[in-house]
Amino acid sequence: MIRPATSSDIPAILRLIRALADYEKLSHQVVITEAQLREHLFGARPYAEVLLAEEAGQVVGYALYFHTYSTFLGRPSLYLEDLFVLPENRGQGHGKALLTRLAKVAVERGCGRFEWMVLDWNTPAIQFYESLGAVVSPEWKLCRMTGEALQRFAATAT
Amino acid sequence: MIRPATSSDIPAILRLIRALADYEKLSHQVVITEAQLREHLFGARPYAEVLLAEEAGQVVGYALYFHTYSTFLGRPSLYLEDLFVLPENRGQGHGKALLTRLAKVAVERGCGRFEWMVLDWNTPAIQFYESLGAVVSPEWKLCRMTGEALQRFAATAT
Repeated sequence: MIRPATSSDIPAILRLIRALADYEKLSHQVVITEAQLREHLFGARPYAEVLLAEEAGQVVGYALYFHTYSTFLGRPSLYLEDLFVLPENRGQGHGKALLTRLAKVAVERGCGRFEWMVLDWNTPAIQFYESLGAVVSPEWKLCRMTGEALQRFAATAT
Repeated sequence: MIRPATSSDIPAILRLIRALADYEKLSHQVVITEAQLREHLFGARPYAEVLLAEEAGQVVGYALYFHTYSTFLGRPSLYLEDLFVLPENRGQGHGKALLTRLAKVAVERGCGRFEWMVLDWNTPAIQFYESLGAVVSPEWKLCRMTGEALQRFAATAT
């Protein structure tokens, strides 16, 4: 079963975020707190939305998404930031159910694209996405400025 | 001079979007109209914001951006979708002025990251971004579902 998250799901979502980071070998980057997540999903200026996958009343997976914008198409996109199903609950269609629901939301909201990122060593995920009709771009690279570098660069603004 | 765009700048922004697409060899993808851009920048649900670079009262460049969200940091990011300066106005610091202003906005709004994408054949851009303190990720790949594939996949949702 797929359903939108409510504020009472915050602890479960946070556990899943930590499990995802662990799977991606990025646990050292996770500093989010329950209060931050609550504010950013359900506060005055929501930055993202969450769908949950449930099995026997237990939350076993989540998708966190928001809207970006394509100037070429002149339409919003639906961007999937996180998709994760607990390792012990895989192979039962939860990931695909989350993705199809997101695609439906994208079409209903007039989005021209449904996009996400994948780590290039995650071959099972890439094959799965391609089997659904997604195209993995070989040429776009992510640029990121963060931490000290961002502070330093921002300080040079006139 | 860098300033936020207003609705009277829509025709100028559209010309720049088309010039950017031409530079990226993606003109065939550009279908945005003036009405769409006006609605999506200044309508009831704005999807993006725009900063303009001016020289002698003429708009010579633009940056279109919006907020994404990092679950690991628990903070919004500032995502730069388009950055473009007309070829005949390059080398005068407009691109860097737009970027520094965006970095300042990111810091002021509590963003943990300032991010954008670059085409991997655009070596001058990559070198420029790295010189400013950005890191180009070798391992994240963009997945995209669009057009017919998106419609087909969405139709399988239960």
